[in-house]
Amino acid sequence: MLKIGNLPTGSLNAITDVNGVRVGHFTLSENAIQTGITVILPHEGNIFKEKLVAASHIINGFGKSIGLVQVDELGTIESPIALTNTFAVGRVATGLIQHMLDQNPEIGLSTGTINPLVFECNDGLLNDIRGLHIKEMHVPLAIENAQVDFEQGAVGAGTGMCTFSLKGGIGSSSRVVKIDDRDFTVGVLILSNFGRLSTLTIDGEKTGEHISGQIEKESSELMQNARTAPDKEKGSMIAVIATDVPMNDRQLKRLCKRVPAGMARTGAYFGNGSGDIVLSFSTATKIPHDMTSQVLMIPQIHENAIDTVFSAVIEATEEAILKSMFHAKTVKGRKERVVKSITEYL
Amino acid sequence: MLKIGNLPTGSLNAITDVNGVRVGHFTLSENAIQTGITVILPHEGNIFKEKLVAASHIINGFGKSIGLVQVDELGTIESPIALTNTFAVGRVATGLIQHMLDQNPEIGLSTGTINPLVFECNDGLLNDIRGLHIKEMHVPLAIENAQVDFEQGAVGAGTGMCTFSLKGGIGSSSRVVKIDDRDFTVGVLILSNFGRLSTLTIDGEKTGEHISGQIEKESSELMQNARTAPDKEKGSMIAVIATDVPMNDRQLKRLCKRVPAGMARTGAYFGNGSGDIVLSFSTATKIPHDMTSQVLMIPQIHENAIDTVFSAVIEATEEAILKSMFHAKTVKGRKERVVKSITEYL
Amino acid sequence: MLKIGNLPTGSLNAITDVNGVRVGHFTLSENAIQTGITVILPHEGNIFKEKLVAASHIINGFGKSIGLVQVDELGTIESPIALTNTFAVGRVATGLIQHMLDQNPEIGLSTGTINPLVFECNDGLLNDIRGLHIKEMHVPLAIENAQVDFEQGAVGAGTGMCTFSLKGGIGSSSRVVKIDDRDFTVGVLILSNFGRLSTLTIDGEKTGEHISGQIEKESSELMQNARTAPDKEKGSMIAVIATDVPMNDRQLKRLCKRVPAGMARTGAYFGNGSGDIVLSFSTATKIPHDMTSQVLMIPQIHENAIDTVFSAVIEATEEAILKSMFHAKTVKGRKERVVKSITEYL
Amino acid sequence: MLKIGNLPTGSLNAITDVNGVRVGHFTLSENAIQTGITVILPHEGNIFKEKLVAASHIINGFGKSIGLVQVDELGTIESPIALTNTFAVGRVATGLIQHMLDQNPEIGLSTGTINPLVFECNDGLLNDIRGLHIKEMHVPLAIENAQVDFEQGAVGAGTGMCTFSLKGGIGSSSRVVKIDDRDFTVGVLILSNFGRLSTLTIDGEKTGEHISGQIEKESSELMQNARTAPDKEKGSMIAVIATDVPMNDRQLKRLCKRVPAGMARTGAYFGNGSGDIVLSFSTATKIPHDMTSQVLMIPQIHENAIDTVFSAVIEATEEAILKSMFHAKTVKGRKERVVKSITEYL
Repeated sequence: MLKIGNLPTGSLNAITDVNGVRVGHFTLSENAIQTGITVILPHEGNIFKEKLVAASHIINGFGKSIGLVQVDELGTIESPIALTNTFAVGRVATGLIQHMLDQNPEIGLSTGTINPLVFECNDGLLNDIRGLHIKEMHVPLAIENAQVDFEQGAVGAGTGMCTFSLKGGIGSSSRVVKIDDRDFTVGVLILSNFGRLSTLTIDGEKTGEHISGQIEKESSELMQNARTAPDKEKGSMIAVIATDVPMNDRQLKRLCKRVPAGMARTGAYFGNGSGDIVLSFSTATKIPHDMTSQVLMIPQIHENAIDTVFSAVIEATEEAILKSMFHAKTVKGRKERVVKSITEYL
Repeated sequence: MLKIGNLPTGSLNAITDVNGVRVGHFTLSENAIQTGITVILPHEGNIFKEKLVAASHIINGFGKSIGLVQVDELGTIESPIALTNTFAVGRVATGLIQHMLDQNPEIGLSTGTINPLVFECNDGLLNDIRGLHIKEMHVPLAIENAQVDFEQGAVGAGTGMCTFSLKGGIGSSSRVVKIDDRDFTVGVLILSNFGRLSTLTIDGEKTGEHISGQIEKESSELMQNARTAPDKEKGSMIAVIATDVPMNDRQLKRLCKRVPAGMARTGAYFGNGSGDIVLSFSTATKIPHDMTSQVLMIPQIHENAIDTVFSAVIEATEEAILKSMFHAKTVKGRKERVVKSITEYL
Repeated sequence: MLKIGNLPTGSLNAITDVNGVRVGHFTLSENAIQTGITVILPHEGNIFKEKLVAASHIINGFGKSIGLVQVDELGTIESPIALTNTFAVGRVATGLIQHMLDQNPEIGLSTGTINPLVFECNDGLLNDIRGLHIKEMHVPLAIENAQVDFEQGAVGAGTGMCTFSLKGGIGSSSRVVKIDDRDFTVGVLILSNFGRLSTLTIDGEKTGEHISGQIEKESSELMQNARTAPDKEKGSMIAVIATDVPMNDRQLKRLCKRVPAGMARTGAYFGNGSGDIVLSFSTATKIPHDMTSQVLMIPQIHENAIDTVFSAVIEATEEAILKSMFHAKTVKGRKERVVKSITEYL
Repeated sequence: MLKIGNLPTGSLNAITDVNGVRVGHFTLSENAIQTGITVILPHEGNIFKEKLVAASHIINGFGKSIGLVQVDELGTIESPIALTNTFAVGRVATGLIQHMLDQNPEIGLSTGTINPLVFECNDGLLNDIRGLHIKEMHVPLAIENAQVDFEQGAVGAGTGMCTFSLKGGIGSSSRVVKIDDRDFTVGVLILSNFGRLSTLTIDGEKTGEHISGQIEKESSELMQNARTAPDKEKGSMIAVIATDVPMNDRQLKRLCKRVPAGMARTGAYFGNGSGDIVLSFSTATKIPHDMTSQVLMIPQIHENAIDTVFSAVIEATEEAILKSMFHAKTVKGRKERVVKSITEYL
């Protein structure tokens, strides 16, 4: 049983331990089509009318996300967060816009526009990514499917993703921290699609080298390649951090910057071709779209108390990456390629 | 005859004075539908296979562009640059991706993915923006239409845009600078959609106040509103700078940061709700997608010689904004709203 | 009588209209030594024990300030703000550290260190800057001298500075804004040392060209140079914004980004060699160094109400630059060079 | 024998394997005074007249360095790089300025100013940091002492620093990479002053827990504290990367961003109070201060070849941190405090 770090986990050990957060998937998994959408609903109300404080951080920017310019300027999110494949960002953004227009008849008429948030990794190894199989209409299907107890592994946006040359995808973990003697939760959801088998490290163990030895006896061409011709680190990782700790956007950006420490402990090398991006938000305060008072009172953690939240992010990131692998089943996709689950080797 | 600053203009006084740059429009202009797409082709070859050095700068980030994360990381562009309305970014991005996939059969198979660049302003005052009238298939129509001698004003992405409460849209200007005794060109293209009538300044003249006086005698409700209830500065501006001056991406980012000086001289106040974003690229060097040598020789201007290029950007920005207004005809759009051309008042 | 913009000024029309803010100078003005220190005390208490929310913005980074790394990370200031000449930054920083150590015996023993804030412009045209005439012990002299009704022009850090080829230095202005029907103040203090005579613009008037005509008839070699061989824009400008509007550090950074609009209206061209840096802070909330509760309640303006604060910054910046010139007397310095007051030409 | 990663080291396994780089120390080590200065000379010529391409990155900005604003703007360094204690930054900056003025009589007269680069960690645990024992005149002593074969451990700026609750200080390591079939070198120098004993990890081994067990039997109060009351991660780390790989400043910034991966593998948790800052420079091209041609030809690695340089940085960082500990002897300092060398436990 995987146990990373020292902090206690939440009851589900997932991002949905943060009250109000739900996760939904839309999955396409048939032969050469192995892709999907994962959405994170940040709270149960209308996220456009009640925005949340948020921040982002680019670890390595070989990526094609949409929405971060406005998050950086305004320090808030106002739409669900969607993950998908690289070429589907445009359609998923349009699907999110349409969803928000349907929910909010005043957008684009009596009030401003909407900033959709879409992140991506490249699932082209297993998925016919050139086929543009994701459609705008798939977005509401993922949203409708959102729940607290969600599936992990090769599902939704994670359907076609690979991690340390093994099957990866969606993983999530959480930690509970004490602030002013109250329990708060930090949850991380990962879309993992990075890493070379040889450097995979599990809680200090050089598991990648060990698995590499087993693969030597296999016939799978793809897995042989993973062993003998370790790819450049081309993949990517998206991390979404949710917390109910009261934080301003600067503090949330500091949280985002702790994600690489969790990644590094699993063996990440942050290659040129990786698009490693983090988004974080706090559910502690809702910022009203319609101004009733010109001054808001915002609770915010004292900087001297923030270290435990940093540790929670590092631990939950490391564990969520590993869970994305442990939950993922073996998948056969494009060109009959098979990417195996780590569970076949342990 | 408008004459801004001291530097000479290029022969067309437009961004296409930079050799190889072309601009194409796709326009929808009928009743409540007043919108479109404008594309800038950075050179005449295959921009994916021969990338250009580039940089961006966010003046105010209340905007929904796509593509800047990768430009910041890699310092290059690899796709045409598209401008459109706020809710059309996703579809135009998908249209660009499809165009690049058609041109480059290896993308997503034997090589990586493609980073589409799409910028936007909100044309919802005149355009039924909620109707999502821009389609993916409109993108190739704009690209096919690209030419050196392109239309300005209420056309393409500029069809429904308003500037200083008057009709704005697409404007462009250029300047010629001497470096090592050779002529180089700096071109700016603007999508203008910002400003309150009262602050419009033309080469130091408080023209906005003057026009405001004339409007007093008019019956148009919209123009009366512009006069009596000056809106908050909600609009946005996109600026694209092209040059054949050899520059690295850091230097190009410095160019981008001179755009606000040009804007400020026209009376911009950089309001909370504006999405003011600049992209710049240099055509001086093509960076090959496929590496033939691991070391490239890149020409780059000495920092001590850069001031004249800065001045060129400031002058061309100011003039391009004004030209977006002088070229724009009066447009009647959504809800029978009429936004007038500045030429009706001068 | 100079009148910039539409918003009302505070009673002193200076940064010290923000309650608690004081400004002190230390001046060295004798023959070739024309330099000094200006300090801004952000509130009347112990700024280390009660920090203020703050942010900075680099307009052009050809500058040698100290302290901004920590301001960006923590969003607070914890020391007085000092301005001086380029080569005096180190000594003024040490003087500030010594002052803070004297005031706070626990620093470096039972608690952490202190982050001094020092900004600079190059006064080498009039001042023997290579002589390093500023000493560590001059810092407390400037601090002791701090007051609400402070001198402007060729004084303190402004003693040797030049602006638009005329005498510049310290200038300050303020604006009053209404938020939730209460009056708040935005104050700006400028150390101005930039600009070429030919581009000086006063409220839209091309005053620089006019003065240039007058200089033609003069014998001063330096002023002749200013006319015939307009220097590159080598100078710099430091702006400090104080306000009692409740703002978080992200919002304060947005304020800083409005300063270039005020500069541009005076004729700034933001040359390669300029070090244009802005610091802003809000006195609305004191952040305790010693944590009594792990969660703080921080008041913060709603983003929809921020536009008037932006306008206040732009207006006060433009006016403060002009006031730095109108208050500055003619100064003769190094090598018998004379830089004239603008008042000699108007 | 410590062996981190797979790439070969340079002949000295130190930053000075990069041709032209030298390192000098000035050390104060007597009773309660345990501090110093370390300088890195980037090449053997006049660094002001022949600048090097450079970049920086702030991992966590609880730090008081000087010089980074200009490095970010211009992408070059023009002075030696100095490391010292937190309160000595001002004096060391002044010492560097004086040194550069002595070397370059034209600075501040016929040409511009100079940008000194000084970085710091807090050595207050062992050193009487409030005493300000570092003087301006100590800087040239460190510079004169610069050599290729330099001392590591508790020396120079590292004299009073602590790492993972054990003695740390200066450490260095290098890696050799192949580009276009030629050998290039990547060197890292670390000033280490961070970490809690319990998380120290050496090449995957949880050495910190092991040592913690040994300390249980000791009488040293300080070491007992390290075991039973693990401090917050208050320390800091400065990393300087030198390379002869041709790189532009954007690429050098990417190098800097790989340092946290090396830190994370030693057990870093990137606490709130840490000032973790990286500077990198390339010796491949000298940028002339005096412009002879307005266009320079700059060699630059193709982005597709950069991954091996990234790996070199990660490996050399991890090893340099560990070497800073293995070279450091036990030190007794302020208040008779003893911080032990790791070699006493292994």
